Amino acid sequence: MSDEFDLTLARHLDAAPDLVWRAWTDADLLRQWFTPAPVTVREAVIDPRPGGRFYTCMRLPDGTEIASEGCILSVEPERRLVFTDAMTEGWRPAPSPFMTAIITLAPDGQGTAYGARVLHADAPARDRHAEMGFERGWGAAADQLEAVARSLGA
Amino acid sequence: MSDEFDLTLARHLDAAPDLVWRAWTDADLLRQWFTPAPVTVREAVIDPRPGGRFYTCMRLPDGTEIASEGCILSVEPERRLVFTDAMTEGWRPAPSPFMTAIITLAPDGQGTAYGARVLHADAPARDRHAEMGFERGWGAAADQLEAVARSLGA
Repeated sequence: MSDEFDLTLARHLDAAPDLVWRAWTDADLLRQWFTPAPVTVREAVIDPRPGGRFYTCMRLPDGTEIASEGCILSVEPERRLVFTDAMTEGWRPAPSPFMTAIITLAPDGQGTAYGARVLHADAPARDRHAEMGFERGWGAAADQLEAVARSLGA
Repeated sequence: MSDEFDLTLARHLDAAPDLVWRAWTDADLLRQWFTPAPVTVREAVIDPRPGGRFYTCMRLPDGTEIASEGCILSVEPERRLVFTDAMTEGWRPAPSPFMTAIITLAPDGQGTAYGARVLHADAPARDRHAEMGFERGWGAAADQLEAVARSLGA
């Protein structure tokens, strides 16, 4: 293990784990929160089973689109979702691997203890991700995730 | 899907699937067949569960040692084993990803229909693997696997 190459986020979300899980694994809901505004998600595909496709196409305010292919690695409904961009659908190695994300959910009062651990191959990759604004970006996305998940329980 | 980036091997093995599975997933047995002679395996670790470590250290006839870290991705006992060198233990992206291997076993008379599909990111990686001697190497290893698995049933 090389925990020192990880970046992490931990939050309490004011929505129950089943709602947070839905907001993560339903592509139409994922689109609503996955990128911090003003970046939007033009298209998303998530097939939550080992080997399944995880595709997102982000659109920047200037109209630039950034497509990203990934692979779902492990699925424990309402508890844990693991995915990576080191592989594409069906576990095919990707040309430019960067990270694996381990998303964890646990009941926390009426809400969810939400965790994200993002694994990198080495310190330079971790530092590049930190400089890209991991903490602010994943934090803002978590706020948006909370709002979407809450709306499902209303 | 990009099947054209795959290399495949299909064989009948004269040993039942449960024995072939044991020979694949027990590190002491794996060591006996995993590399074509005269290359040997000095050390092997296999933890057959999703995210588990798959480590081998090969020794060439001139004494050179080549260590390889990988990650188990999917495990269906006596049916299918998926692993990759695109990640290390715990799904951490690897610095130099190359391939994913999907090993399939099915009953075939008294023996096993044995399949290996090796996925690459692109045509150059596939071609490099072919030039490294994929067909001869994996074929010779399959012969050795059959011999080890047969010995378990004796």
